Amino acid sequence: MKRTEIASLGEFGLIDHLTKNIELKNTSSEKGVGDDAAVLSYGNKKTLVTTDLLLEGIHFDLMYVPLKHLGYKSAVVNFSDIYAMNGQPKQMTVSLGLSKRFSVEDMETFYEGLSLACEEYGVDLVGGDTSASLTGLAISITCIGEGEESRISYRNGAKETDLICVSGDLGAAFMGLQLLEREKAVYGGGEKDFQPDFTGKEYLLERQLKPEARKDIVKFLAEEGIVPTSMIDISDGLSSELKHICKQSKVGCHIYEERVPIDYQTAMMAEQFNMNVTTVALNGGEDYELLFTVPLYLHDKVSKIKGVHIIGHITKKGLGLVMETRDGTEIELKAQGWDSIGK
Amino acid sequence: MKRTEIASLGEFGLIDHLTKNIELKNTSSEKGVGDDAAVLSYGNKKTLVTTDLLLEGIHFDLMYVPLKHLGYKSAVVNFSDIYAMNGQPKQMTVSLGLSKRFSVEDMETFYEGLSLACEEYGVDLVGGDTSASLTGLAISITCIGEGEESRISYRNGAKETDLICVSGDLGAAFMGLQLLEREKAVYGGGEKDFQPDFTGKEYLLERQLKPEARKDIVKFLAEEGIVPTSMIDISDGLSSELKHICKQSKVGCHIYEERVPIDYQTAMMAEQFNMNVTTVALNGGEDYELLFTVPLYLHDKVSKIKGVHIIGHITKKGLGLVMETRDGTEIELKAQGWDSIGK
Repeated sequence: MKRTEIASLGEFGLIDHLTKNIELKNTSSEKGVGDDAAVLSYGNKKTLVTTDLLLEGIHFDLMYVPLKHLGYKSAVVNFSDIYAMNGQPKQMTVSLGLSKRFSVEDMETFYEGLSLACEEYGVDLVGGDTSASLTGLAISITCIGEGEESRISYRNGAKETDLICVSGDLGAAFMGLQLLEREKAVYGGGEKDFQPDFTGKEYLLERQLKPEARKDIVKFLAEEGIVPTSMIDISDGLSSELKHICKQSKVGCHIYEERVPIDYQTAMMAEQFNMNVTTVALNGGEDYELLFTVPLYLHDKVSKIKGVHIIGHITKKGLGLVMETRDGTEIELKAQGWDSIGK
Repeated sequence: MKRTEIASLGEFGLIDHLTKNIELKNTSSEKGVGDDAAVLSYGNKKTLVTTDLLLEGIHFDLMYVPLKHLGYKSAVVNFSDIYAMNGQPKQMTVSLGLSKRFSVEDMETFYEGLSLACEEYGVDLVGGDTSASLTGLAISITCIGEGEESRISYRNGAKETDLICVSGDLGAAFMGLQLLEREKAVYGGGEKDFQPDFTGKEYLLERQLKPEARKDIVKFLAEEGIVPTSMIDISDGLSSELKHICKQSKVGCHIYEERVPIDYQTAMMAEQFNMNVTTVALNGGEDYELLFTVPLYLHDKVSKIKGVHIIGHITKKGLGLVMETRDGTEIELKAQGWDSIGK
């Protein structure tokens, strides 16, 4: 593998090099990389902006995350935030802090992942910069999107009796992380060529390493004429996100353990790790599924959307956040966040 | 000084705590902190977006930069990028990576600086997040602004015979940095209470620690009905920025050494440090002044703007970037960037 020192290109040279093939796709992208700021142009749509800072050792571990996947995921998690507003991501800026350990080729690989995500989701990369870092890789991404005023979904609109819906299944990304962490612990000091056997666990790895944002759900909602009363993406775990919605909407909720969607591989792996699979599904992070609420009368319409599960309903504020377990016991949902599972 | 561990509030608690007093000032700020994304609303104006990633040890040194100043400066350098498009900054998002060394009080101080900058420049803080960092402080700021389509100034519009204009004076922020670095080297290991004597050097320190963006120049330009043919803010040094404009506009330039504006304190300090003051003014970074070009016929109008200096003119592409020295010699301008001065 060729290794070109970043110093040989310089800061401006690196950005020119990494962005030279970028073509703007969206008519709202008037001016991209190469000026003091990008210029966007929106007619009567609302502009949505979200930003994320990802730091090596905290948000990702390059021991088992390939740079291309990291680029893809860094972009997708920001798109997910725009979809969670019921909007469409349109532009993205990327700033990088790079220690000397990284070469130009490393950054090309990272940008390949970014570009692939932009391609898949129809987003333009319109700006950003690079600088030195004393300590590994720092990634700052901002995504700008658009939304129709009448269709934007906030966190604060959930009403009593609304149905609580979740897309996809939960906990798989967390189990994928456990799997990678275990392999790292076991084989971290071993031979370079060792390839752990992940047969039968591909879904978990994919959910962790190459998550997707639920563009399709936002599209289905539009086609069905459904505007969620509230919506959020599940990045920190279902419990934590439910808490955000209930707090901001000033309501309570009642969900059913048996309805929380869990994939077979997630359940098998939790068993192997001696973890409670519901705890994993409630608190495992990085699923990037959508959690949303709709009025009760939309029950039949929302049931028809492929991959959407109705897991409960919204209640009065005083009733708190409640989960009814498989044996009919009601327990209070605690939003512990995924950092604390198993600690 | 009270010290509250950030862990005692948690991530969401910290953001709630830091942002609870924020009131949105701009009608274009529809929804601020607290959802997946901020919601902005622009009518027929263009939306401008700029972003910056600042890392401890690279972009700032907390040995001599107070956190409040760091907050102020982090915001202002982003506003400067929006002004450099001839636009108005309107919203800002801030993401922080924090090591355990920082307390809630530290972050309050940082936010005080941010808020002061937002107040002074009429900008709304509309989002962002905090996370852990293994290694010091990482700051990611995105600023969104607006501009009238007919008034936005890019880097690529400079034409032959255009006048080259610079606001304020150059090199002072760099000399302020040298001064602080010297004090750090001399007194770094000494008593805590030692107060170095900066009498007569206040301007240099202010330029380094509390820079301002040239909102006033953008306002004057509008009042005078002047639209620069190109504009950029001077963050990496005059030579480097001139090179950007000439490269993107496909032109050359001719500037006069004697017209490069330099403050008395800068000149004195360069003398003390045995540095060539013109080199400092051409390559010293962080001035955040505006460099812009206007058609020749606007000479009298632009001369009237207080604090603006005409330092030369644009030439044909083949003629390169030239500076005429005080003794009439023509030398080629090299954009070495401020990192390399004195190395």
